[in-house]
Amino acid sequence: MSASQDKPKVLRETDDVARSQAHAMLAYARVAALATHEPGTQWPLASRVSLALGDDGQPLILISRLSAHFAALEADARCSLLVSESEIEGDPLRVARMTVLCQALRLDRATHTVERSVARAAFLKHQPEAAMYADFGDFDFWRLTMERASLNAGFGRAYSLSAHDLLP
Amino acid sequence: MSASQDKPKVLRETDDVARSQAHAMLAYARVAALATHEPGTQWPLASRVSLALGDDGQPLILISRLSAHFAALEADARCSLLVSESEIEGDPLRVARMTVLCQALRLDRATHTVERSVARAAFLKHQPEAAMYADFGDFDFWRLTMERASLNAGFGRAYSLSAHDLLP
Repeated sequence: MSASQDKPKVLRETDDVARSQAHAMLAYARVAALATHEPGTQWPLASRVSLALGDDGQPLILISRLSAHFAALEADARCSLLVSESEIEGDPLRVARMTVLCQALRLDRATHTVERSVARAAFLKHQPEAAMYADFGDFDFWRLTMERASLNAGFGRAYSLSAHDLLP
Repeated sequence: MSASQDKPKVLRETDDVARSQAHAMLAYARVAALATHEPGTQWPLASRVSLALGDDGQPLILISRLSAHFAALEADARCSLLVSESEIEGDPLRVARMTVLCQALRLDRATHTVERSVARAAFLKHQPEAAMYADFGDFDFWRLTMERASLNAGFGRAYSLSAHDLLP
């Protein structure tokens, strides 16, 4: 490897293998790291969320109003999700992972009643344990509309994916 | 649970149990999510890093100059780490996790020679597989000086930790 001053070509051309891998990672993921901006300080915050894909292929999260990321997304809808292929044995950097940049929208019970109901069904199918608290007044579903992503499928296998690439 | 308009008291008083749990999570973690700002857009980015604790108790990461987070930290040293207790069975939100807000410093080979060497030894003890690429010209160790953290040890068990609480 050479120093990066030469701007080496590190991205491979996005192909169907990369797209399929991205779709599979999104479909199977039950947990992700979410990056948001801390309100006030704008510090980048990494937190944990449980997720599921909606029927439209966009990620859904179910989060509490008491959480830091809820307040963060209310103040700034820009966020990203880190999803990963599987668990870690040996070197953690050998496992494929993907950063997906998204815009978050809260599926408000009053103004997005139907969308919330559809999202709820898709979410609970993937995360049945969440039925225990999904209807608490403090919890809301959010849809994360994907804008673009970077997929790192292991050393030397990096791809850039568009919103179009990310949908099945 | 009630709506958050009343500003319910969601944080417990930080005690030695919470501090010990935080220390253990940091000491055992081999992988973390890192939140940074994307240069140019300031979009929050969540990416994966491997990590180890330095002898001073501060987290160390080893990252490539070709990665998005390297460029991000060069432009803005503010970041956060998400570390987690263990792997996921059942509801992912039942597993303890912690967001640690940090300031990143690159341990430059020329200007931080001794610190880099000490960091390298601590890192490779915890991540022996990284010996394969730790000395490549494209890789650098960074020290993440911890400022504060939020520990979520499961439903109803949330704590705020200071820089002092986070060090052993």
